[in-house]
Amino acid sequence: MKIVCSKSDLLNGVQIALKAVSAKSTMPILECIVIEVTSNQIKLISNDMELGIETIINGEIVEEGVIAINAKIFSEIVRKLPENDVTIQTDDNFKATITCEKSKFEILGKTSEEFPSLPTITKNKPIILSQFSLKEVIRQTVFSIADNESNKIMTGELFEIEKNELRVVSLDGHRISIRKIQLNQEYEDTKVIVPGKTLIEISKILSGEVSDELQIYTSDKHILFEFDKTTVLSRLIEGEFFKIDQMLSNDYETKVTINKKEFLNCIDRATLLVKESEKKPIIVNITDSDLELKINSSIGSMNEEIDIRKEGKDILIGFNPKFLIDALRVIDDEEVDIYLFNPKAPCFIRDKEENYVYLILPVNFSGAV
Amino acid sequence: MKIVCSKSDLLNGVQIALKAVSAKSTMPILECIVIEVTSNQIKLISNDMELGIETIINGEIVEEGVIAINAKIFSEIVRKLPENDVTIQTDDNFKATITCEKSKFEILGKTSEEFPSLPTITKNKPIILSQFSLKEVIRQTVFSIADNESNKIMTGELFEIEKNELRVVSLDGHRISIRKIQLNQEYEDTKVIVPGKTLIEISKILSGEVSDELQIYTSDKHILFEFDKTTVLSRLIEGEFFKIDQMLSNDYETKVTINKKEFLNCIDRATLLVKESEKKPIIVNITDSDLELKINSSIGSMNEEIDIRKEGKDILIGFNPKFLIDALRVIDDEEVDIYLFNPKAPCFIRDKEENYVYLILPVNFSGAV
Repeated sequence: MKIVCSKSDLLNGVQIALKAVSAKSTMPILECIVIEVTSNQIKLISNDMELGIETIINGEIVEEGVIAINAKIFSEIVRKLPENDVTIQTDDNFKATITCEKSKFEILGKTSEEFPSLPTITKNKPIILSQFSLKEVIRQTVFSIADNESNKIMTGELFEIEKNELRVVSLDGHRISIRKIQLNQEYEDTKVIVPGKTLIEISKILSGEVSDELQIYTSDKHILFEFDKTTVLSRLIEGEFFKIDQMLSNDYETKVTINKKEFLNCIDRATLLVKESEKKPIIVNITDSDLELKINSSIGSMNEEIDIRKEGKDILIGFNPKFLIDALRVIDDEEVDIYLFNPKAPCFIRDKEENYVYLILPVNFSGAV
Repeated sequence: MKIVCSKSDLLNGVQIALKAVSAKSTMPILECIVIEVTSNQIKLISNDMELGIETIINGEIVEEGVIAINAKIFSEIVRKLPENDVTIQTDDNFKATITCEKSKFEILGKTSEEFPSLPTITKNKPIILSQFSLKEVIRQTVFSIADNESNKIMTGELFEIEKNELRVVSLDGHRISIRKIQLNQEYEDTKVIVPGKTLIEISKILSGEVSDELQIYTSDKHILFEFDKTTVLSRLIEGEFFKIDQMLSNDYETKVTINKKEFLNCIDRATLLVKESEKKPIIVNITDSDLELKINSSIGSMNEEIDIRKEGKDILIGFNPKFLIDALRVIDDEEVDIYLFNPKAPCFIRDKEENYVYLILPVNFSGAV
């Protein structure tokens, strides 16, 4: 195998492939990137058994062949090479020689025979959306997946398509995040649970451009994302997602309209006084024209008032500040509406069109404030 | 005590004072910043028993007084306050109330009675240099102090003044770094050993501006830096510094002139193949018109050639790559001269005027390369 490609093309491809490389695996071959050179293309392949990536890079093909190279070492070498053409040549003993200008590296690769090939899935009609939309919707929901494996389904996100609407849902037992996107055409009803890890890795690769398209294919067990010269294939999480619609409600006793940035900064200040381990709630006291935020901890106390517009009853309610911060951070609106029912019922932060809905459970707080 | 000052002035002062706050001390009072308000000034004071800082901040003095406040909590609160005027008020029980716009924090402070006052030193004629010069000279030498305490003197830097020249020296047993600065006037001969930690902290506070002056005073046991509205007082390390002049030599068998950036990038690439634990040397092979750099490790091998100008003999010599990288990084010249004697003798990187001299000991490497 022998190829010549620019350092920047190579580096770009390697950084994409790295997203599906196991850091530490019981199968050392999974710590490799496979370079597969056929008559017409140079492909980099990685696979951690959950997630697989194939990406094609530009370059001159001098000789076909295939080799598996330790991803960490290979990526570090490529990163530090001069900005010029890079030649990669392998011999029959899987020794890879990487040359760039006067710099020459030799590292020992492996046969790719043991490397698990990516499952193939039947490509039906793809779901099409912009890279921007997918990247945004991941950012706006992925923080509320559960990070432990005790409930596998909570570590993923529901991707649900009905007609021309994509709804993405994540939840962790204390909160639910929902985002809706309008698609350009109607599709068959689809409901899959995509692992959170897949979504986190893919959003690092996506350009985030509105003008860059992306195709999604699904099968029973897999989801395939195709964009630019890259294919990302992920296992799906099997099982039935939670029935969230029965947890949602449009009833409320109190509606508050508040400046998002002021509210966020204020909560941010209040959390200074909370040690991670203490799990102290912040107390929100909503009266006619202002929202008072209070916190008392072993370190000290803080309170602050924010002007609001209010409909309905006064209410005194406690929250885990992190949950409010997470939701407010990913809302782009200048003002947000918060709907409350009573101090034991979930609150909802949502816009009128319900393009976003964030449900947050309140926290009990003991007596006197 | 009651003061009103702008958030930015307060934050700036707090960040300076933080540099001399113990992170974890057996004396909890040392985790505090003292706010001392007298009839004409607001002073922040910190002291970790090695290093003491006093800095004056602008503000309105409403009531005199003094309080010690936990530095970590206080600095975090100040950092997150809105950009506006901040009022700090304390009561007889050392409760501090910090208000800014509609935000109000209450934290419990302490009496400053237990806080160790900074030693006073007699101020003779100060040594004057620019903040830029001091910051630069620290950056250019501090990497080669020893980081363990087994030899206390090696954890500091020699500041030696003779007439109108300041020479700063650090060494760790494998290398010596020397920088010389011309001062604007002549001073009495002075020789002190300043703790590396002091220099690292002070260089974080210095503006780095050529036009900003700084005064240095020394006594038997202390060194005092005065600049802007800040005073930094440090203990000196007691003892006699190493006699370095007898280790320096202007003899050489080989002189190499090399492009600094090329050499640095090349060493940087070579170190990719070295695991921290392996301590593999890089092999430098100097022949008539080029310098070849080689490394062989368990991961692979690398070699690269760089064009040079050479005087004298060919030489094959091994180095710890980190020592070369550290020295080359802080030299601003485009080309550097390297002087070598033999594979067991130290090499010198120095300019003609000897404004900088970096001595690096070579490393033995075993036989065949």
